[in-house]
Amino acid sequence: MLQTIKNTDDIKKLTLEQLEKLARDIRRFLIKSIASTGGHLASNLGTVELTVALHYVYNSPEDKIIWDVGHQAYTHKILTGRQDKFSTLRQADGLSGFLKRTESPHDVFETGHSSTSISAALGMATARDLKGEHNHVLAVIGDASLTGGMAFEALNHAGRSFNNLVVILNDNEMSISYNVGGMSKYLTKLRSTKEYATVKQSVSSALYQIPKVGDSIVSTAKRMKEILKLFIMPATIFDEMGFRYLGPVDGHNLEDLIYMLESAKQLHGPILIHVKTIKGKGCSYAQKEPAKYHGVTSYNYKTGEMTTTSSSTTFSASFGDAIVKLATTNKKVVAISAAMIEGTGLVKFSTRFPGRCFDVGIAEQHGVTFAAGMSTQGFHPVVAIYSSFLQRAYDQILHDVGLQNLPVVFAIDRAGLVGEDGPTHQGIFDIAFLAHIPNMQILSPKLPCEVESALAYGLSKGHPVAIRYPKGTTISDLEPVDYMKDIAPRLHLKGRKAIILATGKAVILASKVRTYLMDTYKIEFALAEVPCIAPVDTDALVQLLKRYSQVITIEDHILIGGFGSIITNALQSVGVYKKYTHFGYKTGIIEHGEVDVLLQKHQLTPRQIGEAIKEKLG
Amino acid sequence: MLQTIKNTDDIKKLTLEQLEKLARDIRRFLIKSIASTGGHLASNLGTVELTVALHYVYNSPEDKIIWDVGHQAYTHKILTGRQDKFSTLRQADGLSGFLKRTESPHDVFETGHSSTSISAALGMATARDLKGEHNHVLAVIGDASLTGGMAFEALNHAGRSFNNLVVILNDNEMSISYNVGGMSKYLTKLRSTKEYATVKQSVSSALYQIPKVGDSIVSTAKRMKEILKLFIMPATIFDEMGFRYLGPVDGHNLEDLIYMLESAKQLHGPILIHVKTIKGKGCSYAQKEPAKYHGVTSYNYKTGEMTTTSSSTTFSASFGDAIVKLATTNKKVVAISAAMIEGTGLVKFSTRFPGRCFDVGIAEQHGVTFAAGMSTQGFHPVVAIYSSFLQRAYDQILHDVGLQNLPVVFAIDRAGLVGEDGPTHQGIFDIAFLAHIPNMQILSPKLPCEVESALAYGLSKGHPVAIRYPKGTTISDLEPVDYMKDIAPRLHLKGRKAIILATGKAVILASKVRTYLMDTYKIEFALAEVPCIAPVDTDALVQLLKRYSQVITIEDHILIGGFGSIITNALQSVGVYKKYTHFGYKTGIIEHGEVDVLLQKHQLTPRQIGEAIKEKLG
Repeated sequence: MLQTIKNTDDIKKLTLEQLEKLARDIRRFLIKSIASTGGHLASNLGTVELTVALHYVYNSPEDKIIWDVGHQAYTHKILTGRQDKFSTLRQADGLSGFLKRTESPHDVFETGHSSTSISAALGMATARDLKGEHNHVLAVIGDASLTGGMAFEALNHAGRSFNNLVVILNDNEMSISYNVGGMSKYLTKLRSTKEYATVKQSVSSALYQIPKVGDSIVSTAKRMKEILKLFIMPATIFDEMGFRYLGPVDGHNLEDLIYMLESAKQLHGPILIHVKTIKGKGCSYAQKEPAKYHGVTSYNYKTGEMTTTSSSTTFSASFGDAIVKLATTNKKVVAISAAMIEGTGLVKFSTRFPGRCFDVGIAEQHGVTFAAGMSTQGFHPVVAIYSSFLQRAYDQILHDVGLQNLPVVFAIDRAGLVGEDGPTHQGIFDIAFLAHIPNMQILSPKLPCEVESALAYGLSKGHPVAIRYPKGTTISDLEPVDYMKDIAPRLHLKGRKAIILATGKAVILASKVRTYLMDTYKIEFALAEVPCIAPVDTDALVQLLKRYSQVITIEDHILIGGFGSIITNALQSVGVYKKYTHFGYKTGIIEHGEVDVLLQKHQLTPRQIGEAIKEKLG
Repeated sequence: MLQTIKNTDDIKKLTLEQLEKLARDIRRFLIKSIASTGGHLASNLGTVELTVALHYVYNSPEDKIIWDVGHQAYTHKILTGRQDKFSTLRQADGLSGFLKRTESPHDVFETGHSSTSISAALGMATARDLKGEHNHVLAVIGDASLTGGMAFEALNHAGRSFNNLVVILNDNEMSISYNVGGMSKYLTKLRSTKEYATVKQSVSSALYQIPKVGDSIVSTAKRMKEILKLFIMPATIFDEMGFRYLGPVDGHNLEDLIYMLESAKQLHGPILIHVKTIKGKGCSYAQKEPAKYHGVTSYNYKTGEMTTTSSSTTFSASFGDAIVKLATTNKKVVAISAAMIEGTGLVKFSTRFPGRCFDVGIAEQHGVTFAAGMSTQGFHPVVAIYSSFLQRAYDQILHDVGLQNLPVVFAIDRAGLVGEDGPTHQGIFDIAFLAHIPNMQILSPKLPCEVESALAYGLSKGHPVAIRYPKGTTISDLEPVDYMKDIAPRLHLKGRKAIILATGKAVILASKVRTYLMDTYKIEFALAEVPCIAPVDTDALVQLLKRYSQVITIEDHILIGGFGSIITNALQSVGVYKKYTHFGYKTGIIEHGEVDVLLQKHQLTPRQIGEAIKEKLG
């Protein structure tokens, strides 16, 4: 069945039975295809029927479908002519794992970070109405994404507007499994009202007929209780916000989904359709452990057995061990995560110290200011958020933590290139948005084994400290930094002519560059590391660099506002001038693909950098 | 009565009648005092009784009271021993117009930007419970601040927690008057339930007794209708989120307020008290026009007549005229504001093009992505937000506008020092957080008359453009830049020895520095302006600077990541090395006070800069 679908028009001709077969085919295709490429499995298995129904009922791309986060849109890609490209998923120059406007006209808005879809959809609906056009606009948003404040801001605005707009709440109980927030508690209640969809309409019309109904309907207290239950439900939070709430509907029942979407088409104003889906649906191992099969590398599609990856300790694992160790003796340590307990390595901590571990849901802004509040009362919060997602709390870091100079430690995982997730997930802006935060100190360990002392250092200070470290792991025989002993810039390897300065993971790249230059051209450069990049120890740098007029910097970050720029400006501020060459990302848009492939594309392999230095310095 | 209150203990001894007299005294004091110092009038008149009641019932600072935004806390300052300092309000080294931890132990958390209070309060309540202590924690938040998504994130987290926490919803109908959002519509409904507070308790106990009540209570349909109305109300949004909702209560009735707060003390878990207040209460002119008397300079306290200020056109007014003019011919222009239609100069536009003007409420994140959505459908949105508040949409600018390279213009008012509002409002970070945004171009007009061509330029481009301009106005006989003709760096005045580069308002400061050096030391420096600061026209800069080895930059921004740093790095990237001296803010914490006084404190008057240059360059 899947072979016959070349574009969205094709599915409109199918019968319900054929659509159901198509959904089964897609599911099988996804399980097999992702098994070899890796990607987001569980979330995509949850949206197969929903996507089929959406493309059956609506006419994309005239009708605009905006997928929140976008990692659940594989079926959308399949149905819009991209099935053939799935073997290249998430690889450089291959199919993106997220929506991509340049990839298809059906991808109307690029997402990646959570909770943006309703805002974008309302913008499109407003634009349509100003132009006097009549297409439909839909946002598909997960229940977990709904806890992001921005989604609420958009619901609030949309609820007061008169624009036709459909919000599909893809409720896969993720906010439930993570057990965060009053909203998830509330959704549980809504979810449990199985017959609600069918009774609702009769009830709400009954409401307006009460005066005519008279005594008969209220003849017994028992009946009264039943009626009350029905009456109370219609006032959902969404109705109160100005939306018309429809649902809940079984997100794996195509007939119900199509019926619900067709009904929504007849209605005006903002509508919210509550769709109940199951993450990993139809794949035993993924359905059993949706979190494990959320984002995967390759696996055996029959058994779900994961392809074994490197056994070396990752930065996340080192951080996880370190915070448990430090929190055992320091009772003031608490940890805060934004729906990323597993990804950030906090599972052990949350098990060992459940009362001191706070998962605030996808709510980075609140998480940071919540930490600020705790820190004013004597605690020392560690906020563990990925670099790219921490961008969402920029103002809270500045306004609530920085200006008040509060002791909060930011454990910034996934700093630098993350690779396959692409531009929306690369952690390449954090130095630029943190270096100017008042009172902020930024540490940048190069090896997983350094994370513990960096964290200990952060927890020993009375001001905000950010620790940025990359995805995965690094290996090197360069001497590890003990942040508790000394954070000053240090020389690793001597050399003449010029010095290479680097920080974090890039120190290892820099040592490879040095080796390349030595092996290829017999030029021996000095290699130095800067463990603390803001504020930099200018005096120590001046000493370190005094024998060199040529300074090369290498970083896993954009050049604007990055490490190299900090070095130049620090020295210049004390009247020391050198000739600099900065290596890093010249653009903030680094597409998806393996990190090594991306580095090559951006001219940042040891050989490429080595050759560039050779050419420049002669 | 006011004279007898030296600290919060004093008011606990008063009778209700005395408390009422105290409130009247405070109100008179505020009206007179703010008349001479300027400050926030209307909001403070609205919270007099609420603050008296809070300090009567609770024991600050053991009990923590967190004021959202913080511009309504004057009565709190008066009752906590700072009455004597009100003549220095908002002046350098004087009383801050916001909360200040260094000013009093009663100021437990510094605010300024909206919607942070519930997060901070929940952090403090959580800390208290971990420590096993028993103080109370309260957040006082306005209805307008409640539309900020971060407040929702915090409500969501708090509603699921078991921490004792009181949120006071200070509902002064601001979100109503601005007419934004489903939430405001909902609050209107709650507000109208006058007897709700008194009937609620009996109703909720009745709810659980229904089976026992039997037929008698439901004998007539009329009675049924009444009961239904009561039953439907208890399920407020706040109850659904896990809060216990109390109210609404008259925020100017001390007896009711005290009773309500005392009741809340007996309850456990998260509680929301809905308090209805009136902005400008008790002052005829302020109550009539609360927006006009929100933030004021000096006025005649008897009549409310404002002290006339300079009649020169401000940047905001120029922007307001320009957008009306440009939107008349370009139908694609739409404007978006975050509860700042007046402040940003959009009143004319909103009157002339009501269908193309969108006030999203205090929801900067949503506002930016809403604009992104509109821009994908052919519109050219202009997002007008103050520099400091735009910090809240950093990720949306990067992730939704920048990465997708969408044509959105950011009209950034209040860039640079704003003065009296202090550290939370200074617009001194925008270059640093915008310069690295992919595809972003930053323009920086120095004169109000340049805003129109800068806006026209922005609207002529297919990528994001930010236009940053300061509060108030500037005057200079330097030639205005016509952005539609040429945005290249330009020489204004010739000179030898060194060149001074500046951008925006700082160009005028730079010209004064040049004059000072000429008048005092007969040294004639060249003066050049850089109208487009990102991306800079490196070739043109190289040409402009080729005769100079010494380059001085001046900016109204922090040095880290600022204009000077951009200049240094741009030239260095093409192998051009100069000796630089950067003038700007060395710290991101610039306290409150008049701008001129602050500049002097930070060594940035024409004379101070001139002397520093003389000393450095010899």
